[in-house]
Amino acid sequence: MDPDALAKAFVEHYYSTFDTNRGGLANLYQEGSMLTFEGQKIQGASNIVAKLTSLPFQQCHHSISTVDCQPSAVTAGMLVFVSGNLQLAGEQHTLKFSQMFHLIPSPQGSYYVLNDIFRLNYA
Amino acid sequence: MDPDALAKAFVEHYYSTFDTNRGGLANLYQEGSMLTFEGQKIQGASNIVAKLTSLPFQQCHHSISTVDCQPSAVTAGMLVFVSGNLQLAGEQHTLKFSQMFHLIPSPQGSYYVLNDIFRLNYA
Repeated sequence: MDPDALAKAFVEHYYSTFDTNRGGLANLYQEGSMLTFEGQKIQGASNIVAKLTSLPFQQCHHSISTVDCQPSAVTAGMLVFVSGNLQLAGEQHTLKFSQMFHLIPSPQGSYYVLNDIFRLNYA
Repeated sequence: MDPDALAKAFVEHYYSTFDTNRGGLANLYQEGSMLTFEGQKIQGASNIVAKLTSLPFQQCHHSISTVDCQPSAVTAGMLVFVSGNLQLAGEQHTLKFSQMFHLIPSPQGSYYVLNDIFRLNYA
């Protein structure tokens, strides 16, 4: 699979998991993973998922606008840059966001997220 | 210097160079550097600077809103995620943008940009 298709498949998997079974994101992080969420730094799969599952909204839907991908300096690693909209249940307006992921091949033949930085794009 | 201060110093240097002497950005890229600019992929310092200097505006001013930074898997490498506003000369409205950089230590003791992804945040 070419890197762009792989990045797009990862992004679709990530946000559909986020929107339907947020706890399932634990499988995509490892102990060395880092998340910077709106400036807050969190390390390790369990802390990251604890943060994501405790966000002050339950139901949400991510719509992806763009996915850009480059090979990283790590063998078979990929940098993925996403922009999109986040719709919260009961809210009329969507929130625009940008997010980057650094994906590293895992011994199991898939990828895990080493670096994850998320920002809402405030008007 | 701590990584956050270093990332902030890089970002200030990058955008002040962009705004005052765009051709000077050549010093921040190398032959293996990659830029994805609004989805267009460009490789190598000279091609990247040719792209940046041929953008359809001359004078501009970047204002930085947020700078996030994480260590990358490369020794002493850093991932830097920026959000901000771009003001073009003669335009009333600013353009919101997000950009990420993967910075790699150079033998000269400074950093160069290996990965660079830029997106405007369209409304």
